[in-house]
Amino acid sequence: MTLPLRPDLAGLTPYGAPQLSVKARLNVNENPYAPPSVVVDAITTAVRKACVELNRYPDRDAVGLRTDLARYLAVESHADFLRADNVWAANGSNEVMLHLHQAFGGPGRKVLSFAPTYSMYPEYARDTLTEYVTLPRRDDFTLDVDAAAAAIAEIQPVMVLVASPNNPTGTALPLSEAAALCRAAAEVPGGCLVVVDEAYAEFRHRGVPSALSLMPEHWNLVVSRTMSKAFALAGGRLGYLAATPEVIDALQIVRLPYHLSEITQATARSALAHHRDLQAQVDEIRAERDDTVAWLRAQGFTVADTDANFALFGPFEDRKKVFEGLLERGVLIRVTGPEGWLRVSIGTAQEMALFRSALLEVVA
Amino acid sequence: MTLPLRPDLAGLTPYGAPQLSVKARLNVNENPYAPPSVVVDAITTAVRKACVELNRYPDRDAVGLRTDLARYLAVESHADFLRADNVWAANGSNEVMLHLHQAFGGPGRKVLSFAPTYSMYPEYARDTLTEYVTLPRRDDFTLDVDAAAAAIAEIQPVMVLVASPNNPTGTALPLSEAAALCRAAAEVPGGCLVVVDEAYAEFRHRGVPSALSLMPEHWNLVVSRTMSKAFALAGGRLGYLAATPEVIDALQIVRLPYHLSEITQATARSALAHHRDLQAQVDEIRAERDDTVAWLRAQGFTVADTDANFALFGPFEDRKKVFEGLLERGVLIRVTGPEGWLRVSIGTAQEMALFRSALLEVVA
Repeated sequence: MTLPLRPDLAGLTPYGAPQLSVKARLNVNENPYAPPSVVVDAITTAVRKACVELNRYPDRDAVGLRTDLARYLAVESHADFLRADNVWAANGSNEVMLHLHQAFGGPGRKVLSFAPTYSMYPEYARDTLTEYVTLPRRDDFTLDVDAAAAAIAEIQPVMVLVASPNNPTGTALPLSEAAALCRAAAEVPGGCLVVVDEAYAEFRHRGVPSALSLMPEHWNLVVSRTMSKAFALAGGRLGYLAATPEVIDALQIVRLPYHLSEITQATARSALAHHRDLQAQVDEIRAERDDTVAWLRAQGFTVADTDANFALFGPFEDRKKVFEGLLERGVLIRVTGPEGWLRVSIGTAQEMALFRSALLEVVA
Repeated sequence: MTLPLRPDLAGLTPYGAPQLSVKARLNVNENPYAPPSVVVDAITTAVRKACVELNRYPDRDAVGLRTDLARYLAVESHADFLRADNVWAANGSNEVMLHLHQAFGGPGRKVLSFAPTYSMYPEYARDTLTEYVTLPRRDDFTLDVDAAAAAIAEIQPVMVLVASPNNPTGTALPLSEAAALCRAAAEVPGGCLVVVDEAYAEFRHRGVPSALSLMPEHWNLVVSRTMSKAFALAGGRLGYLAATPEVIDALQIVRLPYHLSEITQATARSALAHHRDLQAQVDEIRAERDDTVAWLRAQGFTVADTDANFALFGPFEDRKKVFEGLLERGVLIRVTGPEGWLRVSIGTAQEMALFRSALLEVVA
């Protein structure tokens, strides 16, 4: 049989890191702590309640969930100017980003990002036939904002994608630089959105602001978030973004109707209602992150400054060998980032102790 | 602010029927019965169990769920040749169809369907920049298969989309005609898939076979299904399809990683495990459907033959007025199909009694 596969997809393999059962799963930046029992109880109760009408389609506009998300951002990032019509939600930030590319990308259109960065960005572009263009980050993984502004003027992208904290480097984007990107984007004649991907925002150091605080002055800014990390809800798949209502209206056109199940909406709202109960876990992860970075540096490794729940460290002459040595010892990390670097997600204290001892053995 | 909206999306509004709270919601072909308590208990238990690892990403390949779906099709449609690698699942058949279009559609490519049919088909095409072409159905909404075969040869589509039972008409596609479409599609030099959308398959009359039975002889056939209707799970969002593993491999490339939440997988598996408990509801709906059709015909209306959980009936000089008259009486149906027709979903006996009395008042 001849398969009418899109020619540019021929030979490609599906995106995805290994899903292995090992002692320490530190490869996909998951929260190492399961939701606490108060959250599990809330989810279970809400799901049971949702079952009563599960024969009906879910609220297509997810108004209750979007209202809760707006309220959460008001508390978490002082974004008290946000309302439900500023918020969009989907099955993971993957789908939020796909919606952005479906609405604003397409053939003959470009998105600009800054390498190294999240490895899904080129896939969103590929899936929507959008051209994906990258500028290199500096050696310390920060942005050269002047070069970025010049590139925006020259390339005239429809969107600038910048992760903050950046994945896989952990690098936060200073507010002044996010503002500079917004100003440069505002000069693009056809319009240009600056999408700051804050999937890991809750792990940032105290005092580091969210790009959300720029929004009242820069309405071409879009800030995306996820409940996968700080909310310990990777298995629940809930991503969202904040933007001007005109952007949300555009995303509504391309979203599939009823894209968010009633059960997903109920689960996410239950976790949101208990966000303070989840804060202790986030605090532990941040402390463990800072300890891990300090320890790695004390061993002589170079570690990128990180505001996320992971750390990029190196250099290694043969990183694949180090990865495999760790895996043999039950520690699964990620081969990603520039040649010579490895990324480790921050797990529990016990998992990080295993990581440290395994790493010392492997590099010995 | 200038919004870089895709030019072909300008001025469009989001897809969707009204979500109103009325006495009889008979507009979106929902199952009128909530899942029985045995299913609710199973879902609640499974969700609680899934919460224990909700901080982890879900099984990206949903192998357990796909195995269960294959087993269900073996029981429901004697498709005992299906294995997990023949099955794909996503958040509603909407997303299954999007994946098909992402993998096999795109600029310069065409899909062929037969009007009147499901109003989302042109949206899948639009969202993937695929050209959507339709042939008209006959006056009784059946296919002219010779004309279809000729059109396939001439147009050379990448996919032929045919709903059976068709929405909004209820028309089932005879097996011989599905086979003829597959043979014509097999002659397309670049390859062509025949996608039979069996969203309403479980409501077909006894003795009407599923297109699945053709699959061992026609591997360019794809049969899509949903748990929204017969499984009373519209709020749970689980669509799926059966196809050759080569098709599934292609869909894996374009799917977003972790597209199906662990909770969605757990919910769907719980419902699948109890499919026999849901059969009684399906039987009631079929009986009510046949009664409704007989009653409408006895009143002098024309009703399209239907194997689904809805009926298309008419003709009305001013269908909008009839729709509004029914809505004033608490009965929400759908203005869809060719001019002069209306579609009513089959509800409970009580809801259909309300529909009948309201309709008599409105047309009096």
